[in-house]
Amino acid sequence: MTTYNLALIGFGGVNRALATLIRDEPHRFAALGFELRVVAITDLAFGSLVQEEGIDLATVLAMPRGANFEGLRGGSSEPRNEEVIKNSPADIVVEATFTSPVDGEPAVSHVRWALAAGKHVVTTNKGPVALHGRELNALAKENSASFEYEGSVMSGTPVLRLAQKMFEGLQLKGVQGILNGTSNYVLGRMEAGLRLGEAIAEAQEHGYAEADPTADIGGSDVRLKVAILANELLGASLHPDEVDTIGIQEITSDQVAQALANGQRWKLIGEATRGTDGKITASVRPATLTADHPLAGISGATNAVSFETDLLGAVTVSGPGAGRTETAYALVSDIAAVDAFINGGVHV
Amino acid sequence: MTTYNLALIGFGGVNRALATLIRDEPHRFAALGFELRVVAITDLAFGSLVQEEGIDLATVLAMPRGANFEGLRGGSSEPRNEEVIKNSPADIVVEATFTSPVDGEPAVSHVRWALAAGKHVVTTNKGPVALHGRELNALAKENSASFEYEGSVMSGTPVLRLAQKMFEGLQLKGVQGILNGTSNYVLGRMEAGLRLGEAIAEAQEHGYAEADPTADIGGSDVRLKVAILANELLGASLHPDEVDTIGIQEITSDQVAQALANGQRWKLIGEATRGTDGKITASVRPATLTADHPLAGISGATNAVSFETDLLGAVTVSGPGAGRTETAYALVSDIAAVDAFINGGVHV
Repeated sequence: MTTYNLALIGFGGVNRALATLIRDEPHRFAALGFELRVVAITDLAFGSLVQEEGIDLATVLAMPRGANFEGLRGGSSEPRNEEVIKNSPADIVVEATFTSPVDGEPAVSHVRWALAAGKHVVTTNKGPVALHGRELNALAKENSASFEYEGSVMSGTPVLRLAQKMFEGLQLKGVQGILNGTSNYVLGRMEAGLRLGEAIAEAQEHGYAEADPTADIGGSDVRLKVAILANELLGASLHPDEVDTIGIQEITSDQVAQALANGQRWKLIGEATRGTDGKITASVRPATLTADHPLAGISGATNAVSFETDLLGAVTVSGPGAGRTETAYALVSDIAAVDAFINGGVHV
Repeated sequence: MTTYNLALIGFGGVNRALATLIRDEPHRFAALGFELRVVAITDLAFGSLVQEEGIDLATVLAMPRGANFEGLRGGSSEPRNEEVIKNSPADIVVEATFTSPVDGEPAVSHVRWALAAGKHVVTTNKGPVALHGRELNALAKENSASFEYEGSVMSGTPVLRLAQKMFEGLQLKGVQGILNGTSNYVLGRMEAGLRLGEAIAEAQEHGYAEADPTADIGGSDVRLKVAILANELLGASLHPDEVDTIGIQEITSDQVAQALANGQRWKLIGEATRGTDGKITASVRPATLTADHPLAGISGATNAVSFETDLLGAVTVSGPGAGRTETAYALVSDIAAVDAFINGGVHV
């Protein structure tokens, strides 16, 4: 069986969940036709670790926060991302750092270094894809490498690959989505009578919302995802700044109650549509949906994308949009796509 | 570009919609990498027509009901299904006859004849797949032919191929679906205050329900689809008779109103689940769903399947479950799968 050597860039929740799957469930990968061996890990807190013959994942997964890799063979307290990405014996670089949504760094640099070195890249980071997707895809092509990022939109729930592989022969006219679990949860709790601030506090207690919920509530998280969907699936070249964005911060309990009384639900909708002139327009804004809308029934922290197609009308997929293991699964599906690329020489 | 020769078995709504796409939108197939040429058509009413160089679809699509193929070159007023399937120069047999859900005939025989002759088969008929799926798949393998039937579950909405291609590396624990548009429409109208009989009459007016709605309302249509899902996706070997089936005929307006008052919705749920002992159990029955259930928001005649997976939890796809053009698209996606089979030698 083929063994792929991985470099894990960032050793937070998602890459730790992936490492846990690799350690505990090799049969899952064997069923896909390959073995995974982690040969390098870098992390802002832990530093860097390179062991060509394979890192013992039990050891590094057991290390407490505050520890670092310095005492280990091949270890250092410095992250040394550039050196590890360029020079470690990894076939696939797994990028899952904490990355700025404004400039996509440090993930953009990580992806560039890896692809330029002819290494395949899988990532869950929205930033590099939303901001530099076209450049990075070109760089991948130039270097005969695969660049996969299913998790950048809806965590492990298939969206990009689903549209690319399941709608052969259909024309995609647009996409609409509920792409932020926190804001959807908050709107649902407002339907149950909570005020916006109370609902946000509850979402934070449940671990859905960040300490600073601005990106969730204000729509800028969804904006990045809409740019990805527009560019990847509709062939647009939109910068996230070109996506008109309004969050749910101005929605009042009264509005939510009023809508509900009329059989409607407020939802934060991200959408991208191909106009009759072929131009793609994209937006993020709160909207009231009637019960027959395919996104009206999406409750709690669930995410969904509804694809508007010419022959089938709306086809909608819903599922988790976050979660460590769920997002790690996106990386698994990306690695399977890299494997298909390597074996077939073409993207599948 | 490759040209595939098709034999259309049955020339009702679905195959007429396919013929219309082939006539009017060759670019749609060119984008998939092939051309389609219809070299044979058989139909109970029209008889049979074989023209090796390709039938002029405009001519046959314009023929009124009551006419038959007798006057045309290569035409006959007799259906001659067996002869056409076995001997016409078709690469792919497109089976879309009016078929009995009890014994799957005449479709089962059509599929057998075609596969035994080494011809690829695409079909929208539930019967052959639900009743004889295992045998027919074995026959296909034996004859190095492809047998595709995406449309047998949810018309053009991808379900079988979605689960097979999008969930690599996941374990599927079970499936739950709303698999009959008529009964879902009826339950929705009962929520709006109609009685069962009134709602059925309305569904018939809208063309959702057959003149005899027994199979829709009584659950036997869903039962066939559940058997297909259980056998194809969970590896079961269930006969439809082994699926415990209760329809919605006993659901009262009072029950529907009562549930709604409690924030719940009655839905006709078809499901198949792998137990801890590995055994697959399957059923069709009305159930009350709370608003957070992934199928609770499926409204009107829309269908949906929710896949219960080990790493992602529930991932749900919804879309049309009927319609002529929608079902013809299932055949298009099946023909694309046959093309991939021919080019790759393997099922994709």
